[in-house]
Amino acid sequence: MSDPMNESPGPAPVPAPADQVRIVLVGTQHPGNIGAAARAMKTMGLSRLVLVAPETPLDDDAYRRSAGAEDVLAQAPVSATLAGAVADCRLVLGCTARNRRVQLEQLEPGPAAARLLRFAAEGPVALVFGRERTGLSNEELQLCHASVHIPSDPAFSSLNLAAAVQVLAYELRRTLLAAAPAPAAPAREDGPPATHDQVEGLFAQLAQTLEEIDFHKGRAPESAMRKLRRLFLRSDLSVSEVRLLRGILADAQRMARLASGRLSP
Amino acid sequence: MSDPMNESPGPAPVPAPADQVRIVLVGTQHPGNIGAAARAMKTMGLSRLVLVAPETPLDDDAYRRSAGAEDVLAQAPVSATLAGAVADCRLVLGCTARNRRVQLEQLEPGPAAARLLRFAAEGPVALVFGRERTGLSNEELQLCHASVHIPSDPAFSSLNLAAAVQVLAYELRRTLLAAAPAPAAPAREDGPPATHDQVEGLFAQLAQTLEEIDFHKGRAPESAMRKLRRLFLRSDLSVSEVRLLRGILADAQRMARLASGRLSP
Repeated sequence: MSDPMNESPGPAPVPAPADQVRIVLVGTQHPGNIGAAARAMKTMGLSRLVLVAPETPLDDDAYRRSAGAEDVLAQAPVSATLAGAVADCRLVLGCTARNRRVQLEQLEPGPAAARLLRFAAEGPVALVFGRERTGLSNEELQLCHASVHIPSDPAFSSLNLAAAVQVLAYELRRTLLAAAPAPAAPAREDGPPATHDQVEGLFAQLAQTLEEIDFHKGRAPESAMRKLRRLFLRSDLSVSEVRLLRGILADAQRMARLASGRLSP
Repeated sequence: MSDPMNESPGPAPVPAPADQVRIVLVGTQHPGNIGAAARAMKTMGLSRLVLVAPETPLDDDAYRRSAGAEDVLAQAPVSATLAGAVADCRLVLGCTARNRRVQLEQLEPGPAAARLLRFAAEGPVALVFGRERTGLSNEELQLCHASVHIPSDPAFSSLNLAAAVQVLAYELRRTLLAAAPAPAAPAREDGPPATHDQVEGLFAQLAQTLEEIDFHKGRAPESAMRKLRRLFLRSDLSVSEVRLLRGILADAQRMARLASGRLSP
């Protein structure tokens, strides 16, 4: 019997709030940047792009730089004004450089993402990016509930438009995933972790081997064993790693016994 | 009276650990992407770019897309191999898509940034990005202590190279700013972390020792060494731990030589 859930895994489920987040690009000058922004959005599971009065219509460069996010470009509505683009939004945040004259609450990307997703439970929200060279006008910023500032180096703060979209989209996805129930930890290729007893068995054989290969040479053995215990305990050894290490020790012991004449070759 | 401190404010103070973080681009195909990556770095206060065997030398497109980060490009050394580029690094993290065959510990960008900056207190660290289409080879990943995965949408996961650099550089800066003033990292009881070269020296001696104690017994040696590399790379060995392990190996080798009669007791 076929299980439809297994037959067609399809795209990974996108948390619904992502579909409420609108990325609004205002007055973009280079269509290529719109394409790159669409790609940045789609890598993070966002698809709602809105263009406000772009200087140039979408062109081949835009589609080329979207690198497969053509669907995001194709569905992007164009609005004449920012006010029209965000009319139904519950929260509007505008990306700005630091120290704008318009005094708005200024959020870091992480808290901005958290706030957008909180409001997204209620309806559409918008994250607004201005022109490549001049950003958002004061009038446009006055439509925003708060501003978002990516903490770039003040000495060189000019993020590419798509790079800014990428950082914010990444923060949105990170916040969404952190809120989702964690997926089960992937099984380690090495198999299950070793038990306490298995690791102690390794340590006992290791201590014995150090004696047999005359590692200590009169020094107190405790110091070396303490360091080795610390090293291997923090490594979270698997069952198969313990087996491998004990195999190596067994061969070293065999050589030591051969060398001392206690065993014939 | 002029105050030289005011006359020339110079670049904003960059937290020193940022100068220990090396961004390594391996086998980059498009010079424009190198320029965009340099820009992404510089916006986040990073300047140490290293190129490993780029397919094409830096060109006008690279400088144009750096958008003012020409200094980052101009000082970027070119290395023939990844091993050469990270030889003196205390920690090497490689950016990967999810589900690589090479099993490495996989970090999210935030924890990766935190770990890089922790080790940066001791010396250079490296964050490695692979080719645009094919990423890092398995051999290159085996030089890494752990991998970093940007949690992109599995249905559309292809971040642009510069976008990936931007996300990680942003996380590094965010972590640095959040940590400032950084509490001094507690000194590890066992001293500073080993360099890449020191750990590779251990692996070379380990491989030699396995031969001499006849561990493989006809089996292919690669499998055991691959498992041992994985184990010790994830353990972040200290200088003194490498010295301890190499001392043990030296004694095992001495016993093997005694046993085979190549050395008198």
